[in-house]
Amino acid sequence: MEFNVAIVGYAAGICSAICQFPQAYKVFRTKDTHSISLGMYATMSLGVALWMTYGFLIADMPMILANGVGLVPSLYTLYLTIRNSKAVKSQSK
Amino acid sequence: MEFNVAIVGYAAGICSAICQFPQAYKVFRTKDTHSISLGMYATMSLGVALWMTYGFLIADMPMILANGVGLVPSLYTLYLTIRNSKAVKSQSK
Repeated sequence: MEFNVAIVGYAAGICSAICQFPQAYKVFRTKDTHSISLGMYATMSLGVALWMTYGFLIADMPMILANGVGLVPSLYTLYLTIRNSKAVKSQSK
Repeated sequence: MEFNVAIVGYAAGICSAICQFPQAYKVFRTKDTHSISLGMYATMSLGVALWMTYGFLIADMPMILANGVGLVPSLYTLYLTIRNSKAVKSQSK
């Protein structure tokens, strides 16, 4: 039986997509984002959106799906991180 | 001038690689990981390692580089998150 290289790509894509969920669930549950880096979530969400766009451009369905699925929880975490960082700033004024 | 699709892929790769740094720097500076999801960092680091492996298998240098660079800060954040979660568990005993 031949080793199927694509399986490694699919496994990587699945990890990239699902990894966003535990973090989004954690911030949904606790509303606590203070050790999360806003710079990370802004850059990562942009990256996920660009990977999805790239998937559309090269018509690669696994890439569109993996990144489309991951984008939703990633943007949710980003949204809460921005909202909390604004709240902290206005409190410290 | 023709639109170069690969530019979107490179931009996505750069975002994926550099997004790990602000988070690793933040946990390095504060040693605080308590709003970070261990599940996320474990899955994401595995994903980055698999993307790098996939890059080697299909001999794609940008994929190897982007994920190789991102893997280092990702593993550092994962290491601190695991260490802190163990410390919290032993304190609560």
